[in-house]
This record gives sequence, C-alpha cells and structure tokens, in this order.
Amino acid sequence: MPLQPWMKLVSVDDHLIEHPMVWQDRLPEKWKPVGPRIVERELIPGRPPAQVWLYEDRIYPYIGLNAVAGKKPEEYGLEPTRYEDMIPGCYDPKARVADMDIDGVEAMTCFPSFPRFCGTVFLEGQDKELAKACVQAYNDFVLDEWCAAAPDRFIPVVILPLWDAQASVAEIHRTVAKGAKAISFPDLPHALGLPSLHNAHWDPVFSAAEETGLVLCQHFGSGGEKSMPNLAPDGQFAVMITLMGMNSMQALSDWMFSPALHKHPNLKIGLSEGGIGWLPYLIERADITWEKHRFYQNINKDVKPSELFRKHFHGCFIEDEFGLANRDVIGIDRITWECDYPHSDSYWPASRKRAIEVFANIPDDEVHRMVELNARRLYNFPSMDSSPAQTES
Amino acid sequence: MPLQPWMKLVSVDDHLIEHPMVWQDRLPEKWKPVGPRIVERELIPGRPPAQVWLYEDRIYPYIGLNAVAGKKPEEYGLEPTRYEDMIPGCYDPKARVADMDIDGVEAMTCFPSFPRFCGTVFLEGQDKELAKACVQAYNDFVLDEWCAAAPDRFIPVVILPLWDAQASVAEIHRTVAKGAKAISFPDLPHALGLPSLHNAHWDPVFSAAEETGLVLCQHFGSGGEKSMPNLAPDGQFAVMITLMGMNSMQALSDWMFSPALHKHPNLKIGLSEGGIGWLPYLIERADITWEKHRFYQNINKDVKPSELFRKHFHGCFIEDEFGLANRDVIGIDRITWECDYPHSDSYWPASRKRAIEVFANIPDDEVHRMVELNARRLYNFPSMDSSPAQTES
Repeated sequence: MPLQPWMKLVSVDDHLIEHPMVWQDRLPEKWKPVGPRIVERELIPGRPPAQVWLYEDRIYPYIGLNAVAGKKPEEYGLEPTRYEDMIPGCYDPKARVADMDIDGVEAMTCFPSFPRFCGTVFLEGQDKELAKACVQAYNDFVLDEWCAAAPDRFIPVVILPLWDAQASVAEIHRTVAKGAKAISFPDLPHALGLPSLHNAHWDPVFSAAEETGLVLCQHFGSGGEKSMPNLAPDGQFAVMITLMGMNSMQALSDWMFSPALHKHPNLKIGLSEGGIGWLPYLIERADITWEKHRFYQNINKDVKPSELFRKHFHGCFIEDEFGLANRDVIGIDRITWECDYPHSDSYWPASRKRAIEVFANIPDDEVHRMVELNARRLYNFPSMDSSPAQTES
Repeated sequence: MPLQPWMKLVSVDDHLIEHPMVWQDRLPEKWKPVGPRIVERELIPGRPPAQVWLYEDRIYPYIGLNAVAGKKPEEYGLEPTRYEDMIPGCYDPKARVADMDIDGVEAMTCFPSFPRFCGTVFLEGQDKELAKACVQAYNDFVLDEWCAAAPDRFIPVVILPLWDAQASVAEIHRTVAKGAKAISFPDLPHALGLPSLHNAHWDPVFSAAEETGLVLCQHFGSGGEKSMPNLAPDGQFAVMITLMGMNSMQALSDWMFSPALHKHPNLKIGLSEGGIGWLPYLIERADITWEKHRFYQNINKDVKPSELFRKHFHGCFIEDEFGLANRDVIGIDRITWECDYPHSDSYWPASRKRAIEVFANIPDDEVHRMVELNARRLYNFPSMDSSPAQTES
C-alpha cells in the first residue's frame, strides 16, 4: 500500500475528440461534401462562432464540458466550444500520450465524441451507404491513426453500423484483423429504436464478439436520450451527472433477465463510466426479484442474476470510495479503473495522485489487479494469444 | 440480537385496496354517476370478466400483482383481477389488522391503489371540481373509515389535488386536523407535466408540510410512466421490479440539487419502497458532482448534498442485506422498515420471521431504531405533541 510506482494504470474509459479531417481524409470523393466536416456557426448571439460538425444537413456542436482536461471546475460550462479552446491531447494522439505520461497513465480506451459513445450519430444518416462508410472511416482512423501512434498505449475500441446486423458482424471481423479489442455497443438498444437485446436480431453480433474475444463496452448514455433519467426542464445538469450510473444499472438489469447471456456464454461486457458502488445493491435486488418473479415470465429458471454478473461483467470507477470499500462483495476481478480524460470526472494531470489517495488502504495485490491486471486480461492487451476468445473463469 | 419479541414492527410502506363504495359512499349525488365505481369488463377474451374502476369514461384495471398477499410466487401474474381473488385484508381494515397480527406487524402506512400511489388518477379527471371531491373523499375514507378502524395501527397518509397548489395547502390543513401524518407526493412531478420541485409553485405546499410536520412520502413510481426506467417492449417485468430503487435515486438527486430544501429547512421526506443499499454510492457521487459542478449552475455553494440527505430524508427496506451491512454509512436514524402488504415484495404472513433473519446480526438498540423508533419519531406516531412541526436533528 498504496499504489506502487511499478503498477501501471490501464484505464478502460476515456474519450478522443476527432480532428476536423477524420472523415474528409478517408471518405470517397463523392461523399466528402455530405460526410462529416467542421464548419463555423454562430450558435449564441453575441458570442464568437463555434466549430460544429456538419453531417449531411445536420449540425452537431461539441459542448465545452466534453473537453475540460486542464481546466479548473470554475471554468466548466455547457456552451459550444472550439478546437483552440481544448488542449491538443484531446484530438492529437501524440499529445495525448504526452498527457498520459504527465498523468502517470500507461494505457487507455478511447470512445468517440462526435459519433457519440457508440456511433449512434450514423443511425441518423439518411444515406446508409455513406453512414456505413463513415463507421468504417472512424474505425480506420482509430486503428490506423490514433492507436497506431502508440500501439502499446491505446486499447482500440470500434463502432458498428448498428442498423445492419450482418454488416456489423463483417465490421467486427474487418477491424479485429487490424487489432480491435472492444466494441462500443449501446446500452438499452431499444431506447434507440433498435431491437432490444432480448431479440435474436443481435445473436450474430454477440456471437462475433464471443468468437473474436472482443469486449462489448456499454458506455453510460450510449442508449441516447430515451435511456437517460427524466430531468426537470428547470433542474440542474448536476443531477444528470450524479445519476450517470443509472444507465449501467438499467443495462445490467436488462442483460441479467434476458436470454442473450444464456445463448452467449463467452460474452464479455464492460459497464463504462457507471461506477461500482451500486453493484452489490442491484445484484442482490435482482436475485430477490428472480426468486419471486421468474415463474410467470420468460426468465431462465436455473441461473441467478448474480451468477451472470460474475461471469460476464466488469465495472469501472475513478474514486468510488464506497464501492472500493465493498470490493470483496463485488468481486475484485470484476473491477477496473478509469481516467475519463478529457471529461470532467477526470483528475488529469493528477490521476495518479488521486489514485494514490483512493487506493491508500488497499493491499498491493488487490490494487494491482484493479488498476492494471484485470483490464489487461479482459481486453487481452497487449495480445497474449492470437487464438479465438477464451472463456473467462 | 436478533429482533426481540418486545420490539414492535412499524412499517412505512404498505398498500390498501379501496373497496367498491369508497367514492359512491361519499360523493354528492350529482357526481356519483361519473365518480369512480366498480364495473365488470371482459378484458381478456375467453377469461372471466375483471372488475375495473370506471371514472368519468376511463377504465382502470387492477393487476393481480398488486394484491398477491397469501399467494405463492408460482401464482403471481400481471392479469386483471377481482375482489374475490384477493384476501379480505387487502380492502377491509378489520381484516387487515387481523393479518397484521398474524404477521407480527404493529402499525403500517397505507398508500392508495386505484388513485395510484399519490392520487395522480385525479390529474386525469376532466371535471376538476369532481376530481377535488374525489381526493377529499379518498382522504375522508382513509381517515374516517380505514385508519379509524384501528387508530393505533394505521399511520394516515393523504393525497392532494396536485393540479392546484392552494387547494393542496387547504387539503393539508383540513386533513391534518383529522389526524393525517403524511402526504403522498409524486417523485419527479415534472414527469407528470406538473411544475418541477425546483419551481416556486410548490413553496406553499412544502411550507404547509413543514408547518404541520407531515412527512412528504415519495413512493417509487408515483411520478408516473415518464419517471420509470425505459424497459424493452419484449423485455421482462422483472427488470422493472429490480430497478424500483432508481425512482428514489432520481428523486433524491433532484432534491439535493434544488433550492427547495434550502427554502424549507424543516421538510421531512420519505423515499418509499426504494431500498437503501444504493444510498451511500449515490450520496458520495452527488458530493463529488457538487465539488466539481456547482460553479456554473444554480446550486447552493455552501451545503453539500450529503448534508441535505442527513437532514431531510429517510429510506426504507424489507431485506436489503447490503444496505443493512452499511447502515452506519447511511446513518441508522435515516433507515426505516417496511412490510409492503399486499404487494409482491412482502413476506406476509412471515414478515416478522423474515425480519428476524434480516436483523440476525445487528445489535438490539440499532434494530429497535430501524424497525420502530425511527418511524414513530418521523411520523409522530402516536402523536407526542400537538404543537407545530419540530426540526429533526
């Protein structure tokens, strides 16, 4: 105790900001004029124009809160922002690695920004061929440019053409051949108007994830607006931030009572950015519910929800003291660490300093598993074996 | 240890089923034909007709799951039901007391059924004078008939004409004079299309609750469909049951970041049927959010959310082992016990037996506070003082 200097921090939840040319560099000529590109727009009268993404004819601003690395809380805000307001580590992988060195972080797992956490912006694309090309362009950017800048420092996460299960399977196989380690997949897909995870529609996708050993990451909020807590229109954004774990609670509950995990016994699922302190309560509640309510519903009659959690899921946290105090109840091997650069939960450039405080009273071997070994095992990073996925034990 | 025979179980969350004449016995003649009355309707082809409430021209069935006391889990279901399918303790207060005696429960706090947990059925009334008369009739039933059948066994909970703040204030004063101890008030009122709790609209109501010392009970689900988790259309009802605590999480978060508690320092709020094991996680998360995000929002800059929790709220549980193991983190004086008769969470007729198991390893004085003393203090039951409300410490 505490965090030892030789332990390497491997973060399972971080974010990259796509530079302005990600799609313009990669899309065929015919699609460049309608594919995602950065334009200037005056969104707030009297303020300098913001830089926003224009995709087909829709505008998508970045909000400042999504790139606060290096800012003090007194400088946080929800307004649209510009690249020059961000530090380069947000959008430049070499600068990101330099920022990771400052922060004492060895490796990280970056989710997309403009495409949203799991690429649902492309569900909105009117031209689905273009949308598929955009998904592929993002994945090529992640694999060939972002992660290729430092392959031992970035765990590659890809997105899927979610409107097409067969194309999603093909994209899993295409990207795993180039090094993909995880798929960002929506929590509560039904909230996006997609088939729910109870639907056999997703079986080929889940099977492909099993076969390739890729982790299915379910990032808080990836299910879109209808998966989010119902906030008062005159309420505070802080309520949403406080409740971020609720999305993971909903996703976990939906999985635990679905047939999917019984059909896909090797599926690995990450609950990204959802915290861990609520897990023992929710899993106990799920078991109690299963005891009383499995008879009149299409619920597996033999396997308790808690068994499914311990076999399939892992959670992550930055500073969840209560969760950490209850790590034995959760299962230490189910716990991973996150940095959340460049979002507001992150302590950059003091992530390691904060981790030293957080882990102050935890035995070395347990700290090592939570900050590094569990993530390396789950994401097979660096690759220890080129054979197909193995069942976790 | 464990639960001692001399400790009396005081439950803060139970349900009554209104008998068919509750409104017909009390409404003025002109409104009887449109006020709530029981009619027979064949809702499922080929099955015996169900008894349903008809109010104005709208039909409201009971589902079987809301009156399962005495049934085995193998007999649970979601279909519409009839009075003769229920045991009399559901709708007859004398039979209820007999069932409480069998169960070893001294006193309980009953929420409405047909009007929903906090009377939101009457928000749907087209004739708002009739709707107000229906609210008053329900409260008169609760005070003059249900609780009057055994005043030392029932803690009276009233409902309000939620569409009218001044009428709500008047109803608080009218009913407190007849012994009301608590108000069932919606969690997330904005989810019902009402002003949010951030809105000054509710100040007179909250002030009246403070002045009279009535507890504001926020029952899971009282905020209606839009306050509930987004369930997959082909998912399982068990997911909803597992996630019931989420409504309390949302309600608590909304309060902790609102100005209401700073304006109403003596308001007492009960989180009904929401469990307790999630409380330490959520309160820690709220404090972390407050530290980083209070600067750019309309949030009190001096008082942490955790201080508001410890001053204003209490939670309840039946068998939340993880929550109980963490009772010191939550605060033992914030914890009350519930029976949930006649719903499916209840262990009737074995509530006391289950409580003996649940409290097996807890010191006597702590058990006594959680099962009896905290509820008696919070609800001032039996009345210890006829003076205005006192601040909790």
